[in-house]
Amino acid sequence: MAAPKTTPLFNRLALIGAGLIGSSIARAAREQGVVKEIVATARSQATRQRVVALGIADTVVDSNVAAVAGADLVIVCIPVGACGAVAAEIGPHLKAGAVVSDVGSVKGSVTRDMAPHLPAGIHFVPAHPVAGTEYSGPDAGFAELFVNRWCILTPPEGTDPKAVERLAAFWSAFGAKVETMTADHHDLVLAVTSHLPHLIAYTIVGTAFALREVTQSEVLKFSAGGFRDFTRIASSDPTMWRDIFLANKEAVLEMLGRFNEDVSELTRAIRRDDGQALFDIFSERRAIRGSIVAMGQDSAAPDFGRPHPNLPADPLPKPYAADQD
Amino acid sequence: MAAPKTTPLFNRLALIGAGLIGSSIARAAREQGVVKEIVATARSQATRQRVVALGIADTVVDSNVAAVAGADLVIVCIPVGACGAVAAEIGPHLKAGAVVSDVGSVKGSVTRDMAPHLPAGIHFVPAHPVAGTEYSGPDAGFAELFVNRWCILTPPEGTDPKAVERLAAFWSAFGAKVETMTADHHDLVLAVTSHLPHLIAYTIVGTAFALREVTQSEVLKFSAGGFRDFTRIASSDPTMWRDIFLANKEAVLEMLGRFNEDVSELTRAIRRDDGQALFDIFSERRAIRGSIVAMGQDSAAPDFGRPHPNLPADPLPKPYAADQD
Repeated sequence: MAAPKTTPLFNRLALIGAGLIGSSIARAAREQGVVKEIVATARSQATRQRVVALGIADTVVDSNVAAVAGADLVIVCIPVGACGAVAAEIGPHLKAGAVVSDVGSVKGSVTRDMAPHLPAGIHFVPAHPVAGTEYSGPDAGFAELFVNRWCILTPPEGTDPKAVERLAAFWSAFGAKVETMTADHHDLVLAVTSHLPHLIAYTIVGTAFALREVTQSEVLKFSAGGFRDFTRIASSDPTMWRDIFLANKEAVLEMLGRFNEDVSELTRAIRRDDGQALFDIFSERRAIRGSIVAMGQDSAAPDFGRPHPNLPADPLPKPYAADQD
Repeated sequence: MAAPKTTPLFNRLALIGAGLIGSSIARAAREQGVVKEIVATARSQATRQRVVALGIADTVVDSNVAAVAGADLVIVCIPVGACGAVAAEIGPHLKAGAVVSDVGSVKGSVTRDMAPHLPAGIHFVPAHPVAGTEYSGPDAGFAELFVNRWCILTPPEGTDPKAVERLAAFWSAFGAKVETMTADHHDLVLAVTSHLPHLIAYTIVGTAFALREVTQSEVLKFSAGGFRDFTRIASSDPTMWRDIFLANKEAVLEMLGRFNEDVSELTRAIRRDDGQALFDIFSERRAIRGSIVAMGQDSAAPDFGRPHPNLPADPLPKPYAADQD
């Protein structure tokens, strides 16, 4: 291990779950020197063995209870539907004064599920790093995942501000920008910036593959016209996303209702051949990407910076090269 | 200019329109040596001046009629709604035996609009290279745009097979894969792989920005949760897309109807807390991206290969570094 860059913020970090997010936290925490020691666990033996092989934790244990023993910071990095049971399991074994957090994409339900199981003297600071890729598992993680991304903290009322501040410092050390808001507001914001986009992406992939008139092979071949972008989001982890939609049901249904109204607006313009309405709507919405790029939340590179292979070295196959004017 | 790689397929290529696609064709045609000479024009003087400055054509002229004089291959690279008028304008001035093509995303309407204006002896081979980025204009083009992408040809019944073959060779020289189908089938395929995704992307960007409860600044900041992907597609050229939706109205409305039914299916599963249905649907659709990557139609790199900045060199700001156990 390289010499730590800084004085640690916490002595022992326990990670429950070592998928894309958990393993990225482990890598970033070690590289930035913000903890002295990392203990990790995961539900499956296969995942635990990968964490050992990757060498991204100091210790890998095979139970949640063993993981939290003596830990000053515990981060639960598992699907949101499983957080309540884990809190019940670890609650009695937490070190007094420990900070407990999570990384779930829904904050209201996680708070309701976990808080009752955490004893007095434990600082519960739910968190959500808005970062990820379409890949899952410990091998998918990397230390730079959180750089320039936001991490949202939703401390319940009455949480010790010092605990919130330490967790904010922990995430800041990974290059993340930290913002604090209520769990309810978080769930509304993420319903539109993340949950609705995922639901729509899953939907359109299904629509395309269920057509009788267009073969699945054609959908795949001509996907560069736009469709392929949606397949990336729709290839995210199914368990994680099942839990998110169940846990943030009300906000997602509300956003779906509004989205449906907005689909109707565009449908009506097309049906009425209202080119002016379409042009105005598209022009207005086109500008929004510029703001996202200016804010550092996406790359300005064309096509997300997708690689383009070189031109063929030998442009014309034989039969054509001879076939001239 | 570098020595041509091959014996030209056409002597003189005329490009009407020099945006992303037209200027990419100019660059690729020159680099691959498939034409002897490139004449380009564009509607606006500003665009013509950029083409001159970029040096990607041998001659830049200021009228469509001048552009097609003596051309063996004419490619119309403009929004589909403008193709009919251009065909009427150039029809009487085309060189006998010339091949006339286009690059429009709708083929039925373009064929109906252009064909009546093209005299006997002209070979009309409509084409659609399924490639692009969210950027527009002559500066956005690059020669590698078509490598590994499909170019669909929709020759009307009775078209000379030799003309189709020469145009296929032209596109193959750019690294494109060429497929031939009817215009109607093309329009159905593209309605689902390209037009519906664009319409949905424009819609969701509007939905997010119209919320009262979530500020536009929050939508931008937390867009890395999925929303930002949609903004790329929704930043495409408004004129081009207005024309596409008007020109492919029937197929787009049909796909929208099916999409709405599929949204309802997922909405129902969420409303009924049917986690099993959600899990099954997500699992099935997750697999589709793998096929697209395996077919070479997208990158396997996480997050489309978006760049990730480095970790901060100095992880902890001062107030935190001292704040320890």
